[in-house]
Amino acid sequence: MSDVLDRPDIGHNADDHLKVVGTRPIRPDGADKVTGRAAYGADFNMPGQLVGKVLRSPHAHARIVSIDAKKARALPGVKAVITGADFPNLADEFHEGGEAASNLRDMAMNVIARDKALYHGHAVAAVAAISSAIADEALALINVTYEVLPHVVEVEDAMAEGAPLLHPRMFTEGLEAKPDKPSNVAKRNRIARGDLDAGFAAADVIVEGRYTTKATHQGYIEPHATVASWAADGQCNVWSSSQGQFMVRTYCAKVLGKEISDIRVTPAEIGGGFGGKTVIYLEPLALALSRESGHPVKMIMSREEVFRATGPTSGAVMHVRLGAKKDGTLTAADVELKYQAGAFPGSPVGAGSMTALACYDIPAFRITGYDVVTNTPKVAAYRAPGAPISAFAVESAMDDLALKLGIDPIALREKNAVHNGTKAAYGPTFQNIGYVETLQAIRDTEHYRTPLGPNQGRGMAVGFWFNVGGESTAAVNINEDGTAVVVTGNPDIGGSRASMAMMAAETLGIAVDKVRPMVADTASIGFSMLTGGSRTTFATGMAVVQSAEKVIAELKRRAALIWDVNVDHVMWKDGSAWCLDPAKADEKPLSLEAIAGQSARTGGPITGQTSLNAQGAGPGFAVHLCDVEIDPETGHVTVLRYSAAQDVGKAIHPAYVEGQIQGGVAQGVGWALNEEYIFDRDGHMENAGFLDYRVPVASDLPMIDAILVEVANPRHPFGAKGVGEAPIVPPLAAVANAVRRATGVRMADLPLSPPKIRAVLDAKGG
Amino acid sequence: MSDVLDRPDIGHNADDHLKVVGTRPIRPDGADKVTGRAAYGADFNMPGQLVGKVLRSPHAHARIVSIDAKKARALPGVKAVITGADFPNLADEFHEGGEAASNLRDMAMNVIARDKALYHGHAVAAVAAISSAIADEALALINVTYEVLPHVVEVEDAMAEGAPLLHPRMFTEGLEAKPDKPSNVAKRNRIARGDLDAGFAAADVIVEGRYTTKATHQGYIEPHATVASWAADGQCNVWSSSQGQFMVRTYCAKVLGKEISDIRVTPAEIGGGFGGKTVIYLEPLALALSRESGHPVKMIMSREEVFRATGPTSGAVMHVRLGAKKDGTLTAADVELKYQAGAFPGSPVGAGSMTALACYDIPAFRITGYDVVTNTPKVAAYRAPGAPISAFAVESAMDDLALKLGIDPIALREKNAVHNGTKAAYGPTFQNIGYVETLQAIRDTEHYRTPLGPNQGRGMAVGFWFNVGGESTAAVNINEDGTAVVVTGNPDIGGSRASMAMMAAETLGIAVDKVRPMVADTASIGFSMLTGGSRTTFATGMAVVQSAEKVIAELKRRAALIWDVNVDHVMWKDGSAWCLDPAKADEKPLSLEAIAGQSARTGGPITGQTSLNAQGAGPGFAVHLCDVEIDPETGHVTVLRYSAAQDVGKAIHPAYVEGQIQGGVAQGVGWALNEEYIFDRDGHMENAGFLDYRVPVASDLPMIDAILVEVANPRHPFGAKGVGEAPIVPPLAAVANAVRRATGVRMADLPLSPPKIRAVLDAKGG
Repeated sequence: MSDVLDRPDIGHNADDHLKVVGTRPIRPDGADKVTGRAAYGADFNMPGQLVGKVLRSPHAHARIVSIDAKKARALPGVKAVITGADFPNLADEFHEGGEAASNLRDMAMNVIARDKALYHGHAVAAVAAISSAIADEALALINVTYEVLPHVVEVEDAMAEGAPLLHPRMFTEGLEAKPDKPSNVAKRNRIARGDLDAGFAAADVIVEGRYTTKATHQGYIEPHATVASWAADGQCNVWSSSQGQFMVRTYCAKVLGKEISDIRVTPAEIGGGFGGKTVIYLEPLALALSRESGHPVKMIMSREEVFRATGPTSGAVMHVRLGAKKDGTLTAADVELKYQAGAFPGSPVGAGSMTALACYDIPAFRITGYDVVTNTPKVAAYRAPGAPISAFAVESAMDDLALKLGIDPIALREKNAVHNGTKAAYGPTFQNIGYVETLQAIRDTEHYRTPLGPNQGRGMAVGFWFNVGGESTAAVNINEDGTAVVVTGNPDIGGSRASMAMMAAETLGIAVDKVRPMVADTASIGFSMLTGGSRTTFATGMAVVQSAEKVIAELKRRAALIWDVNVDHVMWKDGSAWCLDPAKADEKPLSLEAIAGQSARTGGPITGQTSLNAQGAGPGFAVHLCDVEIDPETGHVTVLRYSAAQDVGKAIHPAYVEGQIQGGVAQGVGWALNEEYIFDRDGHMENAGFLDYRVPVASDLPMIDAILVEVANPRHPFGAKGVGEAPIVPPLAAVANAVRRATGVRMADLPLSPPKIRAVLDAKGG
Repeated sequence: MSDVLDRPDIGHNADDHLKVVGTRPIRPDGADKVTGRAAYGADFNMPGQLVGKVLRSPHAHARIVSIDAKKARALPGVKAVITGADFPNLADEFHEGGEAASNLRDMAMNVIARDKALYHGHAVAAVAAISSAIADEALALINVTYEVLPHVVEVEDAMAEGAPLLHPRMFTEGLEAKPDKPSNVAKRNRIARGDLDAGFAAADVIVEGRYTTKATHQGYIEPHATVASWAADGQCNVWSSSQGQFMVRTYCAKVLGKEISDIRVTPAEIGGGFGGKTVIYLEPLALALSRESGHPVKMIMSREEVFRATGPTSGAVMHVRLGAKKDGTLTAADVELKYQAGAFPGSPVGAGSMTALACYDIPAFRITGYDVVTNTPKVAAYRAPGAPISAFAVESAMDDLALKLGIDPIALREKNAVHNGTKAAYGPTFQNIGYVETLQAIRDTEHYRTPLGPNQGRGMAVGFWFNVGGESTAAVNINEDGTAVVVTGNPDIGGSRASMAMMAAETLGIAVDKVRPMVADTASIGFSMLTGGSRTTFATGMAVVQSAEKVIAELKRRAALIWDVNVDHVMWKDGSAWCLDPAKADEKPLSLEAIAGQSARTGGPITGQTSLNAQGAGPGFAVHLCDVEIDPETGHVTVLRYSAAQDVGKAIHPAYVEGQIQGGVAQGVGWALNEEYIFDRDGHMENAGFLDYRVPVASDLPMIDAILVEVANPRHPFGAKGVGEAPIVPPLAAVANAVRRATGVRMADLPLSPPKIRAVLDAKGG
């Protein structure tokens, strides 16, 4: 399955065959997960804990005139009631620790409303009681007086003249001239290069389209859950499911006005996040309720609360105009992206803009993005945030261009592909990318040559994601019996425990089952950015490898001490120290285990620890190929076959990498065909549950062929690039392009649900 | 209160005034402990856990002929029954990680009996059931067939010809000639110097006595408790109260035949240990029950089980003979120590021998120690293990010598005192000791000059403890807001969280309340020896200071980067970096907080980590002065006043150091006056509860004056020496000498309980 393009000059074992990296050992978390022992967010309890619940706004937009909690407080068994007044008012402050910069003031007001409720489901108050039933009753006894305001849900409605304003003092940033009146557009961003008019003038053909996507949810199986305790001396303990215990710690400190060192956060096992657990919702409420009640407080969202009050990704309206020569050479591109941000600014339109044309080398282009607030839940990161949306528009237009010119869609991409040395549309110059190799990998598949039947269509699309590095800490601690523990501060959302153990084992030269990977709490390991941006195997992995190298240096020092030779005369190879001193030629190699057994007598424990801010993450390119069949009776689209090739740098654990690709495709297929937030006229989500919000299940999907292309990243010891996000970028367009080719009709509004397909078929038939 | 003898050439801030070290900030664990939030061994629960209970031998010595658990297994609700047959048979292997070397084979057989039960209370089987009641019923249904054997409890009985043998293949080690028959004496050790006969011949006076002490328990308030889980893939989690999570991990791995990396141990808050939690009892049983049942298993000892089945310290029989000139100069000493080991070898007679004469410079001496097994619970470490026992004998004899010669007892100690440069009786040459300063501190007290009333007496005694260093790991992690976390692997039994935070704060130059100290689990921090031997503030503190120094080096690098100057032009002072580059003379100092806030942009998290094997712990000398009053009616002894001076090197947190001294005195007074294991003729302990085993309570004691003498230890950054153990060494003799002077009669058999006092008074009166 893997098309290995290893660069032999890269990595620790450049001259050796890799023994661990690239193999597929069983996962260290497997037994816990299949036997139910793994402890997720809701699985932890603290003695004396109360049940915390949230009162949520029944209105999409309303002024909170007053909150009367007297009756609730008087109910026996109620131990605390809190409202926004129990939290400090923060100034604007942007924090860069998450997937994107977060305005802490907005985050705090999203956690609990102050003067206005900005969406249906916005937290307005919270209670802690001795039972779930009493907490529910207390919520019912809180009397909130609202002044209902007009609301707006759709992005273009929110941009329209006279739209209800969510934030009456918000003016659009990024315009040439300072705006003279407030707006729901928080920001306009623009990326441009070359002479756009000349580019379109030089074109032989122009394709153009308007494309829309709906808000979709990450659909993690595990709802948000936490248990938190605020002790009498202000020391706080939080257990929660998140993508970053340090993120939870920092954000809770900010929202509650505490020092970071007052809070200790222990990460739970995480039942899916996909970006949606890079922010906080319940944790500060639980802490404030604990502060008021003197008890630990446990809070668990229902599925309905997850839909109504946590961040999906943006719905969007987009325009794309492409100009090209007859041979397919692109001459110009104009892309306009309008992304829903939800109740507070911060849609992923920035990343959507930067990635929109990242696969293409175009002399003239303009990308304009709008970040637009709406009376809907504040969006959160969702796997390659923003990129699948803009890719849907651009790749749909590219497919139309291929059809119009009669050019093979892969060939059209190849003709306009970025290469090493190309200055990317978003700025930097590409190096060590494997894009054309990935296009070639799809062209080489048997899938690409297989004939199609009636009502079937084949679509392809490409996708790009930056992948990032960033701050990580790791420790490698050697046990007395020669086994090792690898400690990191990154929750394992996609197999990082396995990859960390493997990289440590490879570096040390020991078997991977001698290495136990662990995710530590915020008090036990140094700061690590959250698990996101496809950064962990790259950045935290680098910290692990550097820590293992420190351990090797120490092992060599110990061996030198044991042999009484200069450390320069000790070589580390295959998990053992080798004596190179000719005067001690009889010394046999000392294994790691043998040295570890003597560590007490040679200077103490053998450990290595590294903090770093990793730079040089290799960007990811994905090329997907999808066959669909349309049922003309029902309009149902069946995905028949799916091949997903991706440049992964070096697959540390190929099975996990394939799993990441398969998971990204599955989510993208759901986004393309079925998933959407449906709001009624009052701005209430009508389908806040998995019965009505339809994510793909196993029977909806074929086995997805993951094709690993390995163009090594020289900035990582083993050549790894991030892999988790790129696979969700192409599927929206790949599926839509397949439907286009099956039906002959371009459908530009996702999801391509059966009623829409039926309507197209009906229109075509008629 | 403190007699500060700081050496200005020592320590980090040698030229500055110390700002944090030596102050008395409130304790970081205080609020948790007084509000009940602190989670002790029994406070943790795992989902689905069972109740584990132990079946214990009803005989002091018996062969286990058969165990029939069929009925127990058949009882509904019983999920597992285990016996010794469920554990691997280990070979002799000595492990040095505890307070003393432990034979792992013996430890395993103490955890659960194999072919023989060696004491009343020895674990024979264990069950796991869904409730405590069902577990109790299951224990009753286990049918054990015993062949009862003759038993022996007292040390001299066990040494006698024809005594019942506990281990029929055990031969005495350490004799000149290989013994020709097995014995209950596991080992004889001897320390000697000079010509003993000549020494006694040169003496003007000789005093001689036989002294006995009884087995006493550490009396920790928290019984042993654990909850443990063995997952389907063999990965184990243990939560338990102990003095060392790494000790629990290693010992469990050995006893269960597992790899160390398969076990993760999380330390609970500890409710007292005093050496008694340096070994394992329940943890391997809970793990084996979890393995058999597939559920986590929680086990908690009752107080009765703690008395019957965990290690007290030795009862002992001792002979001391001292020769001296008329001026008090000692010419010879002959000391014989016979210590009970309990069911397996390993009494603290070695340390008792080494410390017996450590305060004295004597030309000729001989110390002979016997380690003797008896049908009683295997002894465990108890605060300065072995030293209070031998000190009781030697210091009683010294007091008799002072009385016989009419010399002031302090003057007698001064005349024979060890000094810097003296070769200690146990081998090494003393350096940087503060013994004579400590004698002087007691002589200088107002207490020493206060007149006594009728039926009152004043006793003094001296004591010695080595204090140790050893293996520790620590990390100092800087948070983004400039606060810091200090992580160690040592359970806090005497204030080490406070001292670690203070040393880190002092080194970094920040306020102590910006530093949060944490004790991490075995997966989150590198190996650390257990908390014992008075090693933690010394050794782990050194690791903390070195880690903080690494942080400072990194902070200076970051400041250099921010200023664009060479790092050699950056100075760290008072918690800030100062620019020394003349070309950048305008740069203001950058505080730790300011640098931390920019850490993401200057290279990532700022952390420092250190593993070391600390050497050079300064030995501790204690000099105690005690006034008692005898009630002639009842024989009750009231401790009227107690002054305890000690060379502590440098008191990092003086209030904690004073607390250590006061606690040691309290335990020593209990040992002297009331505490003892009382066995009936069947070898059953008759007083296995705090009503009948009488530890001192607050109303039994006066306020104890702790006098801190600070003769700095140059091997520690702030001059610290261990302080926790030396204070329990002198009280047995100090109290006994006070009673001697109050009654005029030497009582050489502890405890000096009212019936014994009454008998002496009656004999004297008659």
